[in-house]
Amino acid sequence: MFEKPIGMRDTFPNLYKQKETLRNTFTSIVSKWGYDFLETPALELYETVGSVSSIDDHQLFKLLDNQGNALVLRPDMTTPIARVAASKLLQNSIPIRLAYSGSVFRAQQREGGKPAEFGQMGAELIGDSTVQGDAETIALTVFALRELGIKSFQLSIGHVGFVEDFFKQILGNEERAEPLRRYLYERNFVGFRQYVKSLSLSSIDKERLLKFLQARGNEKGFSIAKQIVENGAGEQAIEELSELYDALKVYGIEDVVKLDLTLISHMDYYTGIHFEAYTEGVAYPIGSGGRYNQLLAAFGQNIGATGFGLRMDYCLEALGESTVSNDQTAIIYSQDYAKEAWTKAEALRAEGKRVVMQPVQGIQDMDAFVRDMNDVVFLLGQGERS
Amino acid sequence: MFEKPIGMRDTFPNLYKQKETLRNTFTSIVSKWGYDFLETPALELYETVGSVSSIDDHQLFKLLDNQGNALVLRPDMTTPIARVAASKLLQNSIPIRLAYSGSVFRAQQREGGKPAEFGQMGAELIGDSTVQGDAETIALTVFALRELGIKSFQLSIGHVGFVEDFFKQILGNEERAEPLRRYLYERNFVGFRQYVKSLSLSSIDKERLLKFLQARGNEKGFSIAKQIVENGAGEQAIEELSELYDALKVYGIEDVVKLDLTLISHMDYYTGIHFEAYTEGVAYPIGSGGRYNQLLAAFGQNIGATGFGLRMDYCLEALGESTVSNDQTAIIYSQDYAKEAWTKAEALRAEGKRVVMQPVQGIQDMDAFVRDMNDVVFLLGQGERS
Repeated sequence: MFEKPIGMRDTFPNLYKQKETLRNTFTSIVSKWGYDFLETPALELYETVGSVSSIDDHQLFKLLDNQGNALVLRPDMTTPIARVAASKLLQNSIPIRLAYSGSVFRAQQREGGKPAEFGQMGAELIGDSTVQGDAETIALTVFALRELGIKSFQLSIGHVGFVEDFFKQILGNEERAEPLRRYLYERNFVGFRQYVKSLSLSSIDKERLLKFLQARGNEKGFSIAKQIVENGAGEQAIEELSELYDALKVYGIEDVVKLDLTLISHMDYYTGIHFEAYTEGVAYPIGSGGRYNQLLAAFGQNIGATGFGLRMDYCLEALGESTVSNDQTAIIYSQDYAKEAWTKAEALRAEGKRVVMQPVQGIQDMDAFVRDMNDVVFLLGQGERS
Repeated sequence: MFEKPIGMRDTFPNLYKQKETLRNTFTSIVSKWGYDFLETPALELYETVGSVSSIDDHQLFKLLDNQGNALVLRPDMTTPIARVAASKLLQNSIPIRLAYSGSVFRAQQREGGKPAEFGQMGAELIGDSTVQGDAETIALTVFALRELGIKSFQLSIGHVGFVEDFFKQILGNEERAEPLRRYLYERNFVGFRQYVKSLSLSSIDKERLLKFLQARGNEKGFSIAKQIVENGAGEQAIEELSELYDALKVYGIEDVVKLDLTLISHMDYYTGIHFEAYTEGVAYPIGSGGRYNQLLAAFGQNIGATGFGLRMDYCLEALGESTVSNDQTAIIYSQDYAKEAWTKAEALRAEGKRVVMQPVQGIQDMDAFVRDMNDVVFLLGQGERS
């Protein structure tokens, strides 16, 4: 057959309708929460956006334009939105609330794996440094997922600042913490424990590191975190998380979230509270988000921000395939009845029906054509047969 | 500021809303006419789609993937749809009606010129070889443009077969006709006349070529075409056009179309009846379409097809900028009133309002923030102030 690039997929009408419904539902709720949608180009300058994005270089689709500039197909949406916001901010008051729905691109190594282009829908609260902003982002994620019809899901909530400070206190520097981060990212707790045992640390510090793995769950998470943390940025992070939980209660969503201080994101621009949304039967997070207080600085604006994005493909996977039945009515007509066919078609369309007007001489296989229709009206000079 | 690649543009919220409205309106009418929407990837294999598309090579964004395959950002939508249809056709009955709405990409040489990425919305009637199919495509173009709110527009209708045969009869081969085609494409009738005079042809043939320039207008066009054509493919084309006009009367749109046999398309895959839609104040066609009976053959299916596409950007230009006024209500609240703020926000959202929930401590410049809102509710411990 006619091949496509690795990881590239066609969306056939059935799936298209489901995607369209998700997009419209998402647009509706996010817009009601006061977020304004915008669109950025598929191509960005590598220098401006590609190098700032936290997607690995080998996952970028890179090309040169006619003038020799290095371009990149946008690998995420938050970085381009940050670029726009940094310019827009000059005219607008902050905080500003922006949203998007579009494709992002990540080069894949082999067929049958992850998609190289997928839809992402998200919202960004830019110019905000409050914990209430983090709570709004989390609440909007929860209400959007509910509105999309995703029944049971849970959000794991972590804090980049806590992990950084905790590892720094014990291991002294970032390099020594890197393998531990990787084990956490891969959810390989066995590997984590073995690695901890191999480290030359005091038994107290080893104990702290091992106990850290249990800092999950809303009550237990806080309790353990308080036991293993020393004063400083780690303590500050716990206070923020505690404030966050109070703020989440306002939305009545404290049951949907679960503290997990071992959470490590694949996006390295997060700086504080961050989260991932999971649902049964889908291996990867259907959504994720968090605070990124440094990203806007790359575009010359020293302000905080928080936001989230949902993966269109994983959301669809969570919802399962819905077979949309044929909903077209065909009016099959001979030339003398063209005017009648048109009048009939417009009348049925006005009733909300989807109507195909089909001259009979254009059909090669009548049985096959009729089979694909929900309903058929014949206008063939023998009156109407239905 | 932070630059973007040449010809790439951001769509700010105001314009985004207009685009969204156009997309939804187009989707609604085209879907009601029985067309099914689908989506194809932004990247295609150069070998499969890039080389088949009729966009000049220097306008293609080309890149290599990690495996060394040449990829291309889709320069048009009809070719990828043809690729999908050729596969889908194996399971479906023909004719099939497919539609799309998405970005296409054409590399530009300089800033401030044409866009390098623009939205295109269109529909394809595939597996159809009837003049009624051409009429349906033209009628759907007309009804879609009306539905989009574009007030006064006209469709110029030409026929690739007529021009080919006419030039061949007089000039003998394609090469000698090429300069004449170019003058027509550029609408440079002065150049055309001068070039005709310079040709070594009989005065009768020169007269025919000059008279051809007047083959425009519904009555005059047919009358002149019949005078200059000799029997063969040219005569056949006139018969098709005549049949088309009868078919267009069924839709009551004969006043919106104008025969123009001098019409030359920039897409070289058209093979028969083709057309362009113009409106006052926009220099380029807001839409175009036609019959392409050879394109599916490039994907192994020897069947006819016809279709059209609308340019999102030119349609927006035709509609003019509509300044959408601020439509957000802000609830500005202090911490003690968070729960009240949430209850109020949800109540207003349920009424269809767009509501921003804003903690007061997150606002740096209150006057600027309030200025951007349509309405503000304060919940600051002093009761509600509105």
